Amino acid sequence: MIDYKKQINKKVTISGFAEKVRNLQWVQFIVLRNEGKRIQVTIEKSEEKNREMTLIVDKLTNESTITVTGVIKENENVKLGGLELIPDSIKVTSISDKELPISITNKGASQIDTRMDNRFIDLRNDANFYIFKIQTEFIRAMRQYLYENDFTEIHTPKLIAAASESGSEVFEVDYFKNKAYLAQSPQFYKQMAIAAGYERVFEVAPCFRAENSNTNRHATEFTSFDLEFANINSYEDVMAVEEELLVAGLTAVKEKYGDLIKEIYGVDVVVPTIPFPRIKLQDLYKELSERYGYKVPSHDVGDMNAETEKLTSRFAMEKYGHEFIFVTDFSKTKRAFYHMRKDDVPQGYDLIWKGTEITTGAQREHRYDVLEKQASEKGLGEDIKFYKNFFKYGCPPHGGFGLGIDRLTMLLLNLPSLKETMFLFRGPNRITP
Amino acid sequence: MIDYKKQINKKVTISGFAEKVRNLQWVQFIVLRNEGKRIQVTIEKSEEKNREMTLIVDKLTNESTITVTGVIKENENVKLGGLELIPDSIKVTSISDKELPISITNKGASQIDTRMDNRFIDLRNDANFYIFKIQTEFIRAMRQYLYENDFTEIHTPKLIAAASESGSEVFEVDYFKNKAYLAQSPQFYKQMAIAAGYERVFEVAPCFRAENSNTNRHATEFTSFDLEFANINSYEDVMAVEEELLVAGLTAVKEKYGDLIKEIYGVDVVVPTIPFPRIKLQDLYKELSERYGYKVPSHDVGDMNAETEKLTSRFAMEKYGHEFIFVTDFSKTKRAFYHMRKDDVPQGYDLIWKGTEITTGAQREHRYDVLEKQASEKGLGEDIKFYKNFFKYGCPPHGGFGLGIDRLTMLLLNLPSLKETMFLFRGPNRITP
Repeated sequence: MIDYKKQINKKVTISGFAEKVRNLQWVQFIVLRNEGKRIQVTIEKSEEKNREMTLIVDKLTNESTITVTGVIKENENVKLGGLELIPDSIKVTSISDKELPISITNKGASQIDTRMDNRFIDLRNDANFYIFKIQTEFIRAMRQYLYENDFTEIHTPKLIAAASESGSEVFEVDYFKNKAYLAQSPQFYKQMAIAAGYERVFEVAPCFRAENSNTNRHATEFTSFDLEFANINSYEDVMAVEEELLVAGLTAVKEKYGDLIKEIYGVDVVVPTIPFPRIKLQDLYKELSERYGYKVPSHDVGDMNAETEKLTSRFAMEKYGHEFIFVTDFSKTKRAFYHMRKDDVPQGYDLIWKGTEITTGAQREHRYDVLEKQASEKGLGEDIKFYKNFFKYGCPPHGGFGLGIDRLTMLLLNLPSLKETMFLFRGPNRITP
Repeated sequence: MIDYKKQINKKVTISGFAEKVRNLQWVQFIVLRNEGKRIQVTIEKSEEKNREMTLIVDKLTNESTITVTGVIKENENVKLGGLELIPDSIKVTSISDKELPISITNKGASQIDTRMDNRFIDLRNDANFYIFKIQTEFIRAMRQYLYENDFTEIHTPKLIAAASESGSEVFEVDYFKNKAYLAQSPQFYKQMAIAAGYERVFEVAPCFRAENSNTNRHATEFTSFDLEFANINSYEDVMAVEEELLVAGLTAVKEKYGDLIKEIYGVDVVVPTIPFPRIKLQDLYKELSERYGYKVPSHDVGDMNAETEKLTSRFAMEKYGHEFIFVTDFSKTKRAFYHMRKDDVPQGYDLIWKGTEITTGAQREHRYDVLEKQASEKGLGEDIKFYKNFFKYGCPPHGGFGLGIDRLTMLLLNLPSLKETMFLFRGPNRITP
């Protein structure tokens, strides 16, 4: 992208949206917006050479797209960074209807559903636009960390033969004359890659969950950043990789967008210190009870609910001054059958950030006989036979985790809901545009 | 990964698969395989300190996984690079069943379907294993090119409300009490990003096609590398970006894996020169007729079929000495309604590599009224109203293309079929494992 300040007195060509066209008696102004950057285009009507341009701007509506060639000049009277573009030519590449279905700048003027219907306009608001610039940098830096650590990228199928982990929340697909299902996670296939001999793998891809719930942090489709790696000694190794991964991502985000995030979202990006604090679930319950008088409801004992997560972050900040905290030692009844157990305790964790769970990670059970036993215990049989098979012919100890990048971005920027965060949100009542 | 040659006389810990265990009278050998690299582990039975290890290796089956700690020694009698690992300890982390369902080394011994059923073992064959190491580097380098050129990564929904481009080949999903469909491509949503003001976007994600065809180059699910960018002057700008993108990818692949690809797949990776040759379809027909006596069947006139593609690459090599060739000026009846036309000619191209089409790219029609006309001509109406809407409120000229990375990898390594190329192939008769 052009750094306008470095182009003073030079000829440039800038394309973008005519955010605001003002036609005064002696002069015309256009605020030209390109990827969130703005410059004022100034056309003096009195100048003979501008006659043609003046006629063009006469008919120009806000949000039309134009390509302007001209010279960037310093002018201390101009609000937009003290610069203006004095054009030689303006080419109109598309004309916007006069009335937009939603306001770009005033988000509060429309219902969230109307804004989602018109997401392609809603995203022109800076606070929406930058979400994906920032997310791009976050994911780029995390992928970079993985490349540097010899991870292999895999692309696992989303069309699967059997409802995998939990049958109730899976979408069914007409597959020629049969049925297929949409994968809820790449879990089984990440582990297949380990059995195939890949020591470290990752995937960034959609996951599908047929949950008929309407919370601010659930969607029926979301993008998961998943990894899995072999030859670990315990789930401590998994947590260590997740720490480094998040530090890599947040360091890059802070460097490139820290100031902008502060300005637009009012959020300080904090690069966390390593190691993140860790606490066992039972010790956490005790702390929450003693500090905040909070008792976990009986049906959630052994696990966390939204309220527990909120208080856990409050506790992490108060006790450790840390935005992140690992919670370990969940009840085996609340964890998937493929988590390794030691003395009956699942060898995994939840990672909590800013009051919300962002990861479940674990060492996996790689011993065929133990895995079979744990699967039967949970009532899983024929459907996962193909999966259990992966562990019959040699499979090293391994573990991994997944991060929902939409949720991660929501928390990073302190957005109120996935509806605001996702490029196009999908929920039980929302499948358009 | 450890470079064994740099660790001579040093203590190391190596984990991997016991590819071949040989138990002789005085000595035991294990070929230890880690991510395609091999080292011989040598245990002298006569040495007192080895007694415990000897008992472990006695029971070790091929393809079990182990972790070995020891010292790497030079030994010119050892075939595997003149090195051996003299162990202090061997830890068995999983035991493989004695009989594997397929042979790892002898691919010909099993039918392709049996190998696909056991893909997690099939991938242990070097020629399969390295596919994803190489693909990882290919995609990494192409993404890197995009990051350096300010592209924004988007994640567009795969669950959509209406069968988008061509209704017949779309999968239907039960979506709560309604129907949804699986996206065949991110085309409409990439363009939405352009309308939203992103100047350059990309996505790497699954696409779904309910084609009931069983060719070597079609799958019902595949991974598409898609991009779209604004403020272009013509589809020449699109071709120029695709050239640079492929050069970036192939340069990195050749540098990191060129020798290995030559050794394992017998393929010379060629970094193509820029610009790639270009030819209009009618001129191509003439060349193919004159050179090879080939006449395009009447129902394919205005387009290319598999045979045409093969001959086109032969022609490109003979005339230009080039692996790639752009074919332009297709018939408008054979191109999607959203391709821009000039004098009734679609402003797009196919890119052919090694006898196969790898891309359809184009400048898109961004003018609402023209787009509406072209859509009506193809009989498209209400279903794409949401899409046409993207062009009503300002949208700059833009274009883009998509690359199927599975097909790209297949051609790169000269593999015979997507069944061999994909991590887990999906076709009309194949939805497992």
